[in-house]
Amino acid sequence: MINWSSLSANEQQAALARPANADAAGLSATVANIVEAVKARGDEAILEYTRKFDCPTLQNLVLSDSDWDKLAAQVDESVKQALIEAYDNIKAFHSAQMPDSVVMDTTQGVVCEQHYTALESVGLYVPGGTAPLPSTVLMLGIPATVAGCPRRILCTPPNNSGLIAPEIAYAAKLCGVQKIFLCGGAQAIAGMAYGTQSIPKADKLFGPGNSFVTEAKQQVSQTPEGAAIDMPAGPSEVLVLADENANPVFVAADLLSQAEHGHDSQAVLVTNSSALIGAVKREVDNQLAKLARAEITAKAMQHARYILTDSVAKAIDVSNRYAPEHLIVQLDDAVALLPSIKNAGSIFVGPWSPESAGDYASGTNHVLPTYGYSKNHSSLGLVDFMRRYTVQTLSQTGIRYLGPTIMTLAKSEGLTAHENAVKVRLDALDNKDSWSGKYD
Amino acid sequence: MINWSSLSANEQQAALARPANADAAGLSATVANIVEAVKARGDEAILEYTRKFDCPTLQNLVLSDSDWDKLAAQVDESVKQALIEAYDNIKAFHSAQMPDSVVMDTTQGVVCEQHYTALESVGLYVPGGTAPLPSTVLMLGIPATVAGCPRRILCTPPNNSGLIAPEIAYAAKLCGVQKIFLCGGAQAIAGMAYGTQSIPKADKLFGPGNSFVTEAKQQVSQTPEGAAIDMPAGPSEVLVLADENANPVFVAADLLSQAEHGHDSQAVLVTNSSALIGAVKREVDNQLAKLARAEITAKAMQHARYILTDSVAKAIDVSNRYAPEHLIVQLDDAVALLPSIKNAGSIFVGPWSPESAGDYASGTNHVLPTYGYSKNHSSLGLVDFMRRYTVQTLSQTGIRYLGPTIMTLAKSEGLTAHENAVKVRLDALDNKDSWSGKYD
Repeated sequence: MINWSSLSANEQQAALARPANADAAGLSATVANIVEAVKARGDEAILEYTRKFDCPTLQNLVLSDSDWDKLAAQVDESVKQALIEAYDNIKAFHSAQMPDSVVMDTTQGVVCEQHYTALESVGLYVPGGTAPLPSTVLMLGIPATVAGCPRRILCTPPNNSGLIAPEIAYAAKLCGVQKIFLCGGAQAIAGMAYGTQSIPKADKLFGPGNSFVTEAKQQVSQTPEGAAIDMPAGPSEVLVLADENANPVFVAADLLSQAEHGHDSQAVLVTNSSALIGAVKREVDNQLAKLARAEITAKAMQHARYILTDSVAKAIDVSNRYAPEHLIVQLDDAVALLPSIKNAGSIFVGPWSPESAGDYASGTNHVLPTYGYSKNHSSLGLVDFMRRYTVQTLSQTGIRYLGPTIMTLAKSEGLTAHENAVKVRLDALDNKDSWSGKYD
Repeated sequence: MINWSSLSANEQQAALARPANADAAGLSATVANIVEAVKARGDEAILEYTRKFDCPTLQNLVLSDSDWDKLAAQVDESVKQALIEAYDNIKAFHSAQMPDSVVMDTTQGVVCEQHYTALESVGLYVPGGTAPLPSTVLMLGIPATVAGCPRRILCTPPNNSGLIAPEIAYAAKLCGVQKIFLCGGAQAIAGMAYGTQSIPKADKLFGPGNSFVTEAKQQVSQTPEGAAIDMPAGPSEVLVLADENANPVFVAADLLSQAEHGHDSQAVLVTNSSALIGAVKREVDNQLAKLARAEITAKAMQHARYILTDSVAKAIDVSNRYAPEHLIVQLDDAVALLPSIKNAGSIFVGPWSPESAGDYASGTNHVLPTYGYSKNHSSLGLVDFMRRYTVQTLSQTGIRYLGPTIMTLAKSEGLTAHENAVKVRLDALDNKDSWSGKYD
């Protein structure tokens, strides 16, 4: 238990520090080599890495339609129904995010417009590993389809027999993924960023992954020939704000569900009640034993943090400083306190709103800024699959009216060619016998 | 003149290639050293670099209020009026971009919300150099203020006497900048990203700059302790789409106004009319001689490109492939053709819409994705000064209704702690004598 008010400024900072990424330099070099190999040799390089790490016998990077259908058909009926219900909620919430265009006359004869348009080609990444994540397929595929991105591909590592989890195959069909490529890691990211013989180049890459995937996304986003990325990433995390009336059983379950993601994921409780901390710790021990991933979870809970503050207001300060990916608010007057809560990717309000709801089925996206990035990055949404651009049209009236202002400003910046681009037009208008064009 | 249809695929790619950044590795190392020095020694390091590069006698990084007032008062009345008119248009267009919240019941008892909130602290960068850019101050400061960012600071390099251009001082006051720091280059970016004794840390950095500034922005955006950035950047560029009815005088003036920005800025004409290309080249020579920055402009025009295509449709294909920062459309049926135009940061429609209009006063933002980034990045807008987050509230009805679906999906992913976080809540509801909380 950390008693916040007893800590020095430095100790407080340390108490909120994330685990640092180990050996960043080594990771960066390893990933750079993989990216270079894929740029140089395309499918051949990706196949080599995939055979080495995932499936020694893989022949083809593309999941065939027949295999895709077969896999999708294997999914248990109850899981299909659950995926469909999640799909409906996620689609409804993301469809409601469709942005409006702005079209206005800013001044006489000057029309300014801002429009959103879907990105042409998006690459979705879904990790393999210990647990298949059909929920992530929905979180990426649904907004890509709702936004109207014409090309939507997905990369996920194959299992030892060169196939993927049936649930991933089913979810991908459900949300309109057009092709699945059987590769993962930095090689998959490089393949989508630069394109290969079989993988079409993507304009932007989406999805979570391990440190290799994260580093590869950072690297390919540094070059214009590469691809944009959804957001920087780090290990998943939850912060629970609770008071003495919170239910320790719920709080413990929420901390454990975060810890379950992996040994490096972070669970933090901030409360003004030491009694609650004691009760939560007891509950953590009770519940931990019964979990399937008890070992991973126990490991992550070793660096769980229980922070005691003097007041609820101070607890909220601590949360704002930590800027959690997931924030669960189990305070009596949670709704009233929301305006004072600043930095969080997604906020879960009240005792009946576990993180699991947003992870799977409520409708919000579970791809969120971690690692303190919720201070200056957004949770994944529909507009991340679109781009904004502006349009302007000046009529003859418009250039006559605004022209002198533009010329004055251009001159004041010493840019006489900018001034001249207006002058030649005003001259053409004044001297009617010369070309005077259309549009008015 | 480049005859597009006569080129091979590789030659076509080369014809659209941007000038490569020279010595990226050397630049990266130099900038990394500056960033490290500023992280380690703060103001002291920034003062050293500023004395070395900008003003040998500078004592204080902060522009005093009295100096700020004095400078602002020196601005010519006609320039003040022009800046005010530009301010009004830019403010009107960006205010119209205020996004709406989404609040909906995705299913029984499940409320999902998406909200935008202003970033806490933004750092604006305005280059010094050959021409002072008050217009850039407005393009950054207005959306920061309209968005409601509580902290808005600006860095710009001082001149030899430790002051800045009066127009920049005036524009900064006009749009609500709170403090001006007298530093530029990578040291200014590092100062705002990490904070120093005098410069408050910014959550996100905005604004154009030279290759040092661009590299520094990329570097500080790679770490969570650093800052987010508006967009990647490269030299400014324009592409003009024109047909045989376009006015060569206007087209030449538009190409020259782009070339004027610097020797590395790029001007491209794509047309189906070789006659137009001839006439534009003659006009370029006529107009070039009269320009104040004729030398820089002539240098940039040496790598201007005149691309001839077989048809207007093909010309639009070429533009979509190039993905220009600025796109000027001087085609007879410009409006009708807009839907086929894919990638551009800002589009200027018809003969009376010079790039100068958007650079200064029409209301659109002139901070735009260059270097091909308009394929997957947005032009600067109000929402870039805000972040999106989601909120969800499940009632007892909501968790009862959605709970089983969440449990099924969690189980299918092997995440039993996620399943348990729902189960303990359903148990509490079924077993009324235990804690059952509030909210329904």
